[in-house]
Amino acid sequence: MGRRRLAISSGDPAGVGPEVTVKALAQPEVQDLADCVVTGDPDQIRHVAGQLGLPPPAEIEPTGVDTAGVEPGRLSATAGHAAVAAIKRALALIREGRAEALVTGPINKEALRLAGYPWPGHTEMLADLCGVEEVRMMLLTDRLRVAHVTTHRSLRSAIDATTRERVLRTIEMTHEGLARLGVPAPRIAVCGLNPHAGEGGLFGDEELTQIAPAVEDARARGLDASGPWPADTVFWRAANGEFDAVIAMYHDQGHVAVKIAGFDEGVNVTLGLPFLRTSVDHGTAFDIAGKGVARWQSMAAAIRAAARYATA
Amino acid sequence: MGRRRLAISSGDPAGVGPEVTVKALAQPEVQDLADCVVTGDPDQIRHVAGQLGLPPPAEIEPTGVDTAGVEPGRLSATAGHAAVAAIKRALALIREGRAEALVTGPINKEALRLAGYPWPGHTEMLADLCGVEEVRMMLLTDRLRVAHVTTHRSLRSAIDATTRERVLRTIEMTHEGLARLGVPAPRIAVCGLNPHAGEGGLFGDEELTQIAPAVEDARARGLDASGPWPADTVFWRAANGEFDAVIAMYHDQGHVAVKIAGFDEGVNVTLGLPFLRTSVDHGTAFDIAGKGVARWQSMAAAIRAAARYATA
Repeated sequence: MGRRRLAISSGDPAGVGPEVTVKALAQPEVQDLADCVVTGDPDQIRHVAGQLGLPPPAEIEPTGVDTAGVEPGRLSATAGHAAVAAIKRALALIREGRAEALVTGPINKEALRLAGYPWPGHTEMLADLCGVEEVRMMLLTDRLRVAHVTTHRSLRSAIDATTRERVLRTIEMTHEGLARLGVPAPRIAVCGLNPHAGEGGLFGDEELTQIAPAVEDARARGLDASGPWPADTVFWRAANGEFDAVIAMYHDQGHVAVKIAGFDEGVNVTLGLPFLRTSVDHGTAFDIAGKGVARWQSMAAAIRAAARYATA
Repeated sequence: MGRRRLAISSGDPAGVGPEVTVKALAQPEVQDLADCVVTGDPDQIRHVAGQLGLPPPAEIEPTGVDTAGVEPGRLSATAGHAAVAAIKRALALIREGRAEALVTGPINKEALRLAGYPWPGHTEMLADLCGVEEVRMMLLTDRLRVAHVTTHRSLRSAIDATTRERVLRTIEMTHEGLARLGVPAPRIAVCGLNPHAGEGGLFGDEELTQIAPAVEDARARGLDASGPWPADTVFWRAANGEFDAVIAMYHDQGHVAVKIAGFDEGVNVTLGLPFLRTSVDHGTAFDIAGKGVARWQSMAAAIRAAARYATA
């Protein structure tokens, strides 16, 4: 197995993406992991490196979007355009065979909206740009792997989207995705939607009408799925080795568990794309952008996971 | 300050409540904390102690409900009746001045229903029995204090109940409750309901229409409240000292965070009652009832918290 080549999109230029990219790639142990091509505005990225007193990334692919007018921490349509252009350039590198996996820096959904793009989040954007119908977000830490049935939508609409079909498809995609990550025959725990997984129908019926049937469907197809389990204890059980992955029904159910279990080390993996994509698990952090204090550990973890699991 | 007297209701006799009560009270360091009166079926509790090879609790107050026919791990109306009788006896001890605070073992909501009781949970039962209109559930660990706007109801109905008035009242009750627990002027972080706290209205509007106005109301009354914050990072921030308490909008949002942050040490405190009530933060665990393997650490933590914070 040769050395991996990764494309890193540097994210919204007004956020901490360029900073955490520069910082992570300045670490010798990160440089040892893979050859990384950063996409973004070379002038801006070199400027950030200079401010930090760090060397710029060895390879930067320009996107054609000039970010000279972008200010740290300030929402703008230009920054939204630049973030999308960086992702498109990275996807082109993969299509051209110049990179095997994608690592993405944080983007800002409000900036995307200002720039006129329709996507509610990174994951949905990548699905659209890759012509894929269904993707799911999985978060990884050393102790937890959590896939989500839904992510970036209101909690009310997430309940509406908790269907037997969608839960089943998430179990299947998690099974396939974990096999690719080197976990064959994963033990998959499925969360309930309601408190105490509905307590036998006392607190909502989605467990009875949608989730339990989906778990049965998955088992009938030979997958090692169980549940619906009460969400408040299932993550602890998984973190202690009882399950290889947990299926969360909505964004906060999974994210609260992952972020408190391993704040710096979280990696976001997109299930369902034709290549491996990992991402930092934090946002643009406009409140600290440009101040030089952003933590680069999640970017390093995303690069490490991509280097480890990418297939040529 | 004299030695505290606590009433301990031993919970559903088919669950792990009697076992964790016996185990906790057999620990010398727990015996040092307070004088404890256990309420339940003395025969059953002594039988459990005998099976465990442990001494029975020094003081057991009978309830009048015979649990001879109750089997470990098996739902029954008799067990539901016994659980309620143990709580009523404990409340009587407090009314009579024989105990200053209440510690409750786990009950089973399905057993309550079989026995014909209307309450969806322990907290609602206590409010009703004490003639109190509004209570809130708070979970405590060494690192986190989390109060809940709603608890035992479907997620869909929890969204409907996320009103400006209810969020404000929860902030106020948390402020008052923490003052009683010895945390004056607490810094209270309020969660959003939707992912990313709604991302400025992109993922739901409850933050804009209900939660942010409630935070403003609380601040106008001089309380140190902030938010709505994205739930996935606010618990980590609180656990690291930035806030004294977090207000979760619904059961799993708070419980997932607390249980993964401190599984064995979680204590449940009821805000709004005329006395201090703490509880184990786990359920009846019918799957392991009668096997002697239940962990007593949460019961010991509940006793410790009650002994520490009870006021005569």
